[in-house]
Amino acid sequence: MGERAVVAVDVGGTSVKAALVSPDLTPLRALRRPSSRVGGAVALGPIADLIGELAGGADVVGVGVAVPGIVDDATGVVRAAVNLGWTDLPLRDELAAACGLPLRVGHDVRTGGLAEFTVGAAAGARNALFVAIGTGIAAASLVDGRLVAAGGYAGEIGHVVVDPAGDTCGCGTVGCLETLAAAPALARRYAALTGVERTAEEICALLPDDPAASRVWADMVEAMATALHTACTLFGPEAVVLGGGLSEAGTALTGPVAEALGRRLTFQRRPSVVRAALGQDAGRAGAALMAWDAAGISPAVAG
Amino acid sequence: MGERAVVAVDVGGTSVKAALVSPDLTPLRALRRPSSRVGGAVALGPIADLIGELAGGADVVGVGVAVPGIVDDATGVVRAAVNLGWTDLPLRDELAAACGLPLRVGHDVRTGGLAEFTVGAAAGARNALFVAIGTGIAAASLVDGRLVAAGGYAGEIGHVVVDPAGDTCGCGTVGCLETLAAAPALARRYAALTGVERTAEEICALLPDDPAASRVWADMVEAMATALHTACTLFGPEAVVLGGGLSEAGTALTGPVAEALGRRLTFQRRPSVVRAALGQDAGRAGAALMAWDAAGISPAVAG
Repeated sequence: MGERAVVAVDVGGTSVKAALVSPDLTPLRALRRPSSRVGGAVALGPIADLIGELAGGADVVGVGVAVPGIVDDATGVVRAAVNLGWTDLPLRDELAAACGLPLRVGHDVRTGGLAEFTVGAAAGARNALFVAIGTGIAAASLVDGRLVAAGGYAGEIGHVVVDPAGDTCGCGTVGCLETLAAAPALARRYAALTGVERTAEEICALLPDDPAASRVWADMVEAMATALHTACTLFGPEAVVLGGGLSEAGTALTGPVAEALGRRLTFQRRPSVVRAALGQDAGRAGAALMAWDAAGISPAVAG
Repeated sequence: MGERAVVAVDVGGTSVKAALVSPDLTPLRALRRPSSRVGGAVALGPIADLIGELAGGADVVGVGVAVPGIVDDATGVVRAAVNLGWTDLPLRDELAAACGLPLRVGHDVRTGGLAEFTVGAAAGARNALFVAIGTGIAAASLVDGRLVAAGGYAGEIGHVVVDPAGDTCGCGTVGCLETLAAAPALARRYAALTGVERTAEEICALLPDDPAASRVWADMVEAMATALHTACTLFGPEAVVLGGGLSEAGTALTGPVAEALGRRLTFQRRPSVVRAALGQDAGRAGAALMAWDAAGISPAVAG
């Protein structure tokens, strides 16, 4: 047995990623497997096997599991995860029983937020917002030093209405933030203007010279600023951390969003607007933080 | 010396209300004095004297003080209270030193919310929203069983934008909830339609037969539902408690708001929408709860 370690797991609809992680959050070994399905639902047995494989020969003291959907972090029950085929699954208890290890379950975006709030771009803040912008848009909130879960219902900033006269969202509401600012919305709106199919990443690469790219990007920025204005009005973050695929744009995203948000704020606290520091590693780092917490051990990270 | 008690104080721009309160939150004795000002700012000496007068002859173990403005409940510092003339005032420490008693300071709306969440309309909820609708509109949030303060910046739901094409708010933003749903907005909009000056209370009394009253009331209801939709999307309350002067309308307010909110919600948790149970007593009850907490004693109330 070497140094104590934890296992960090990220469960997705197509693959399950797991890593053995040291107390300073360094990945020691990582595995990735296709998600095994039984009757449409992602099966737990292979996930437990993956954890066991990583734990073999190591002194593993805890497990953290990040999951998409409506997840009650407090009880580890997944109320609904459409992509995984799960409804009211007591994931924490079932997986802990299978592994025989202290185990914690968290929503994937809140898990990423936990990492950004602890060792990432908002380390040290007591009130902060992490917004993951990708295929969808969701947020994790740190309020008074605590991660907000609200029984799994918190953080659906992608469905804050920003344009009541706009497009209908997949959720059935008109004008949600996702209809203007998620990656598929950028692609759809660019195609509508130009007839050309491009990904959000490609559209970003065309800035600032392509007028259609500039237009959909500017609309995305204004929509983000409108939703963030509301979040600032309701719980006054000191820092807004932008993550997810679109945050790869860096200051082409954070600069205009900070400017547009600053224009909207009056009496509210004015937050810094920064890019996520951990990128694709946020989920693993957050799951590892949950795992150390499950084990009752403080990880060796600067807080 | 009789039974132990606390002093609950509500500081306003025109008067200071204080009461001696029993462990079951019954007011034993109440006093009300005009707010004394020195150089434009409400003076602390007379407030301390009022507390001393109530404490004399009683076994007072703690004091709770409710204050409007931007109030950091955690430190008891009032960052800004325009109506009181206070800026960055360490109210808790100054008043505690003057009284020689354990003392806690809280924002007035959060104090009312604390009471509604503990012994009022949302007793037992772990996630709830209390919205006080009067001259202004502000909210208190209970999230994961904790009252949200965010350094005093939380809860400004009156300044969530609900009508981007609407009127300019006193805060400088266009279309804030307060421009459609606060009591002065109802009066102003009714006067614009009819040329007749009526208070919000009078307008409510004209429902449902007066067309102009019905119109401004319906606009208020839709605006409230729009803002509440956003709050439900961001932190999924189980219960929404409507308080403040306009909640005197009872089911004429809660019924239509529940219906309009229900129409807007899709995947979000669907909260109950109820009238505040404590009415004008919420501030005193909440200040008393803070006072018992300051004393480190659990009050004798059903939680």
